[in-house]
Formats: sequence, C-alpha cells, structure tokens
Amino acid sequence: MVALPEINRHKTHAVKVRSVTIGNTAPVVVQSMTNTDTTDVNATFAQVKDLFLAGSEIVRITVNNDEAALAVIQLRNRLDKEGLDVPLIGCFHYKGHTLLKDHPDLAETLDKYRINPGNVGFGKKRDLQYEQMIETAIKYNKPVRIGVNWGSLDNELALKMMDENANRSQPLTADTVMRETLVQSTLISAQKAEEIGLAANKIILSAKVSRVQDLVAVYQALAERSNYALHLGLTEAGMGSKGIVATALGEGLLLQQGIGDTIRASLTPEPNGDRSLEVKVCREMLQALGLRSFMPEVTACPGCGRTTSTVFQELAQSVQCYIDAKMHGWVKDYPGVETMKVAVMGCIVNGPGESKHADIGISLPGTGESSAAPVFIDGKKACTLRGSNIADQFQQLVEEYVKTHYGAKE
Amino acid sequence: MVALPEINRHKTHAVKVRSVTIGNTAPVVVQSMTNTDTTDVNATFAQVKDLFLAGSEIVRITVNNDEAALAVIQLRNRLDKEGLDVPLIGCFHYKGHTLLKDHPDLAETLDKYRINPGNVGFGKKRDLQYEQMIETAIKYNKPVRIGVNWGSLDNELALKMMDENANRSQPLTADTVMRETLVQSTLISAQKAEEIGLAANKIILSAKVSRVQDLVAVYQALAERSNYALHLGLTEAGMGSKGIVATALGEGLLLQQGIGDTIRASLTPEPNGDRSLEVKVCREMLQALGLRSFMPEVTACPGCGRTTSTVFQELAQSVQCYIDAKMHGWVKDYPGVETMKVAVMGCIVNGPGESKHADIGISLPGTGESSAAPVFIDGKKACTLRGSNIADQFQQLVEEYVKTHYGAKE
Repeated sequence: MVALPEINRHKTHAVKVRSVTIGNTAPVVVQSMTNTDTTDVNATFAQVKDLFLAGSEIVRITVNNDEAALAVIQLRNRLDKEGLDVPLIGCFHYKGHTLLKDHPDLAETLDKYRINPGNVGFGKKRDLQYEQMIETAIKYNKPVRIGVNWGSLDNELALKMMDENANRSQPLTADTVMRETLVQSTLISAQKAEEIGLAANKIILSAKVSRVQDLVAVYQALAERSNYALHLGLTEAGMGSKGIVATALGEGLLLQQGIGDTIRASLTPEPNGDRSLEVKVCREMLQALGLRSFMPEVTACPGCGRTTSTVFQELAQSVQCYIDAKMHGWVKDYPGVETMKVAVMGCIVNGPGESKHADIGISLPGTGESSAAPVFIDGKKACTLRGSNIADQFQQLVEEYVKTHYGAKE
Repeated sequence: MVALPEINRHKTHAVKVRSVTIGNTAPVVVQSMTNTDTTDVNATFAQVKDLFLAGSEIVRITVNNDEAALAVIQLRNRLDKEGLDVPLIGCFHYKGHTLLKDHPDLAETLDKYRINPGNVGFGKKRDLQYEQMIETAIKYNKPVRIGVNWGSLDNELALKMMDENANRSQPLTADTVMRETLVQSTLISAQKAEEIGLAANKIILSAKVSRVQDLVAVYQALAERSNYALHLGLTEAGMGSKGIVATALGEGLLLQQGIGDTIRASLTPEPNGDRSLEVKVCREMLQALGLRSFMPEVTACPGCGRTTSTVFQELAQSVQCYIDAKMHGWVKDYPGVETMKVAVMGCIVNGPGESKHADIGISLPGTGESSAAPVFIDGKKACTLRGSNIADQFQQLVEEYVKTHYGAKE
C-alpha cells in the first residue's frame, strides 16, 4: 500500500522567544522582516502589525543606529498598547555591540538579537565585540540568532579556508570551500557563545545562501553537526514566481527531511508590493507539506479547453477571497475550521470526483454542459445550484458548513 | 566538506514525442495545456504559440468533439506554416475512441494521445474502447500518456479495492486505498497497453493528485514498481502563490529524488491572467534545482530597513525585464548566456559579497550610504556607477558582458 512520507523532525533545543517556542517539537514558526525605515515609527508599526496579523509569529527589524534604537522602544510601547504580542527581533550589523551597550532599554525590549558573525567587527575587535553582544544577551536573558550569510561571510575565516584549500594536493572547488566556511563560521560562533556562557537553548542558527542546492547542503551539514534550533531562509530568493519557487524548493526540501524550526521567505517585493506575501508563502509551504494548518484548503482546477468561460476562475477567486476575509472571525468562533477542504471545479471530467474528496465542493458546468452546478457535502451530493448568483449561493453553503461542522467554542 | 546533493535520475524508457525525447537521460521536459476553446482556431493558435515561445516544449489541447478534431488539423497546419515545431498532445475523455476512429487525420496529426483510464467508458465498453485507442496509437506509431487523476478515478477499480479493504481485519484509511487505486489503475492500464502491443517506450504515465504528500507517495510507488517515463503534475494546485508553492513542493520533492521526466504546473489562472505562467514556473523549478538552465539568474535581496528607497526594487525589476526581453535574441547569438549570474543588491551588508559571487553584480547604496553603486565583474570591482540613470548604465554593462563573454556562434 502507498504510505505517505513521514516527516521526522531533527532533534533541536527548544528556544523561547517571548511567548513563542522555536525548535524541538514546537510547530515550525513563521517569521518575516520589515522593510520600512525603523526610525519611521508610524510606518514600522503599521508594517509590523500587518505582518503579525498576516500570520508572522515573529517580526525582525533592523536596528542600524541610535535613532532606530530609540524607535524600537516606542514601537514596542505602541504594539503593547494595541495588545499585539508579537516578539521583536533586532537585526544588528557592524554596530550591534555599541547600540546594545548605549541603549539598555533596547537590550531589554528586544526579544531576540540577530548577530551576523561576518560583520561584527574587524581584526582584534571582532572577538571582543562579539563577546559584548553575547554577554548582553546573557545579562538580559535573551536568545540570539547567529545568522551567517553567503553575501557577508566572515572574511578572515574565508581567506584562511581558501588558503588551506589551495595547499591541498587536490583543491576543492571554491563553492565547496565557501559552503564549508559558512557551516564552520556558524558552528564556531555558536561554540564561542556557549563558552562565554550562553545556554544552547538560547541559540538559533542560520546560514543563508541564495541557491537551492547550496541551501540544502549547508543545512543538512548544520543538522548533522549540531542540535541548535535552525532558522531556514533562502536569501535573495528573487522577485515574483521565481522567488516563490526557489524558496518553496529550498526550504521545502529541508522541511521534508525534518530540518528547520522557523522559516522566512526572503522575497523581493515588486515596487509597492505587499510585504506580507512573505508570510503568506511561509504558511502555504507549511500547510502544503502537512506540517501545519492555517487556512481551509481551496482546491481549484487549472481549466482547459473544456472550461472556456471564466465563470469558474471567478468563482474560485471569489471563494478564496471570501474565506480569506472570513477566517479571522471563524478561527476564533469555529476552532478546526482551518482544516476544512473546499473544491471549486470547472467541468464534469474531474469535478464531481474531486468535489467528493472535499468537505464541501462545487462542480461547475464546462462548455456545452447544462448550466447546473452540483454541490457535494461530506462526499455526498447535497443540491444543485443554478442561475447567475452561484457564487453567493455557494458561499452561503460554505458559511453554513462552517457553522454546523466546527461548532462554537464552549 | 559540504557536498551538494546529487540527483540520480530514476531509470525510465525514453519516449519520442515528435522531435522531443521524454525519459531516460533526456533533460526534464516542460509542458503545458491550453485553456482556449479548441474549436476557436485563432485563439488556440495564439495560445499554443505563446506557450511554445515561453518555453513549453510540448503543448496539450483538449479534443472533446468533432469540431475540435477538425480544428486540431487546421491548428497543426498553421503552426507548420509559421515554422513552430511544437508537439501537440490530444487530451481525450469519454469520446476518444470515436474521435480517433472518425478522424484518421487527427490520429495522424497528433504527436501523442492522452488517455484517462478513469473515463474511457463504462462496463463492458470500457476495455473495448481502451483497446481501440491503444490500437490507433500502434497503427499511427504514436506514444500515449496514460493519465490517471484523483478526480476521475476508475470507479469500478476504486469500488473493488474499497470493498476488499472493508473486508480486511484492520481496514486501511480511505486515502491509503485511494492512493493504491491510483497507482494500480495506472500500472494495470500500462500493462494492458503492452499486452495489446504498444511498446514500453511509447508509454508515459501520470497519476495526478492535488495534495503534495499524496503526490510524493504516489509517484514514488510508480517509480518503484515500473520503468515507464513519468509525467509529473500536481493537479488543481490552486491560484496565486498557493498554486506555485504547492507545485514547487510536490514536483520539487520528486525531481530531487530523480523522479519525473516531464512536468506541468497546473495553476489556476487569475481571471484574464497569463497562461504562460505555468511554463515560467516549470522552468524556474528546473533551473532552481540545477536540473536545467534557461535564463541568466538575477539574484536580488529582499530589502529591509537598511534599504528603504525603492531604487533597488525598481532596478532589480528593470534588470529582470531587460534580460527577459533580450533573451530570445541572446540565446541564438550568445550560447551559454543562459548560465550567466547577475546580482542586484540593496546595501553594504550583503551587497559586495553577493555581487562578487555573481558574474556581474551591482551593490546599491542603502539608506544613508553615499550614492555610489560599485559594480563587480567576475568577482572583481570593475567600476562605480553614479547618477539617476544607474539602471541604463548597468544594463549596458550587462549587455557588454554578454557580448564579450559568450561570444558569437561560429
């Protein structure tokens, strides 16, 4: 018999970030990052709120100067006032040690610090400044993410490893050395943090690259060589479908192996595009893999020469929009609704069959078929819709299904 | 050292479809399907041409009645007249045996027949009509795809297997039985086709479902139990990012295991959306996995609070559009250009590093950085762009890079 693949999560330390747990058996956490100027508190507040409401369980913001440090504290106050309990991560580059020292309120307010070992300082200052940041994390009892990145790799380590490679009798490719450097930079930094006194369950690792197979290789190595909680991200994934495809492949291949405790989709937004698309994509990945359920599934057929009207495309879209709009309320009132399966099909070939597999499904008439749309509920034909307002009628049936099948919380 | 994952293609028979080879060591073939009314020859011709030029190496059209059968012949003539050597697949449901018998020209014109064993006929007629279609394929020396679908599963077989399951001491779940039925329906049909006399290298199999883990399970079983060439498709994947995510995950998890010889992305187009998105997504999947190269890679960062201007988003988009527009010409004149790597980065943190990894890369100034954009060529800083027309200047450099690095064909 054809059994489903099983996902066995790689064992990691559970890290608490404010009210959210990352790692071990906790559900894979969705996160995102703002692209507003952090010092513009109004804009940053609005975006953090958008991202959080879209389902980002953690939000990262860049803290790149004193003004940004002060802004973060204001931001937290406004979020608290509106009851938005979203953990805030401060993303530091170059000046993190100074900013955390000069702004104790910042150190206290942030729920996690992201440290990039590749740009924590140069020469002798490097270790000292890294140490200062880790000590601040210990003092304020905060977790850190040691976030290494292909584009900002620790130069000294990279040079050392390149030199060592050049001296081999059979040198490896530069790409192979680069991947090993990424992994080592991450693990050496984590080890240093533990030596300074930070507990393993306060450490999350990431090592981001922009190519799918590199990502798979690097994270497999991190998982083989350690048990730190892992933050997955394909960096600079790109724009439009290209970014979505690459992110789904890179992170999906790892999640399927049980690797990854929190994920981000680094999509380049189209000019004035919606930043929350990165959250939507993360949720869609986790749901498609069966790791989490966020939204009722709407299955819709791709259409073909048998379904030349746009009726079913419009219906699929309107049903999807309707569910998106209703979910905030439904999730509170009808627990379990996020597991509902809805099918909107375009003709007689696959329509009735697919509709029967869904909790509630509609099979629209294809070209030349009579203009009747049978509706299937729990695998049985329930009624047939006719007329010009099939969309409204079907949405009412979906609403009724939700109310009668998921019941109100006691 | 951190080695890249290796993809070892599952061994299959190579199937020739007009000038395209599917299976064995042939590159994974991209295909798509029209959603115009086949009888509207103008609209169908325009869409087939669009899909083909977008990179669909095979196009499938529904042939659902006599008018459609006649239209396909006209369509082929027009494609030939314009020198568009795209293989055409006829998709048959219910009436395939009659249409192929009544229209010998159709049987001759099509390059492959898609047969759905779930709707080839009922009762006694079922085997007879299936036999007629396979015999036609043998007569005209055409390959077939035996395309089973979750939504139109062979009812008799499904009922038989459900009954058998009900009689087990510990019945399996209905989903498990359904997956086994899909696999068996596909393999039994293939075996029948061989018994009738069709060669194994004339048979392609598909068994489409709409859930990612079901797809992985079903195709793993097909690959374990046979060596037929496999057509991958997640059916009814859905709309927008959801459809793209699910397709990338389902098909990507299998391709990474070496399973899949030709792929389709069954995306539900947004009303009046571009059908060729399904082709674009297929190519992006194959390229991201490193299985094929179609387009120069543009790596762009996702932006954050360090890059608050939209300059870099606009540049990333304009570079991508520029490359898309130029590629048709470049591919002819500068072979190898499809492997070029371009980086467009938004600030100093990852910009120079990532740009150095690319063949040609630009690192734009982040907020507060001086308005200079260093350009890196082959890993070395080549120049620094300034002023308001950085996009144009950079595109000229890219054009120059293409001309000097990929050289004209002899």
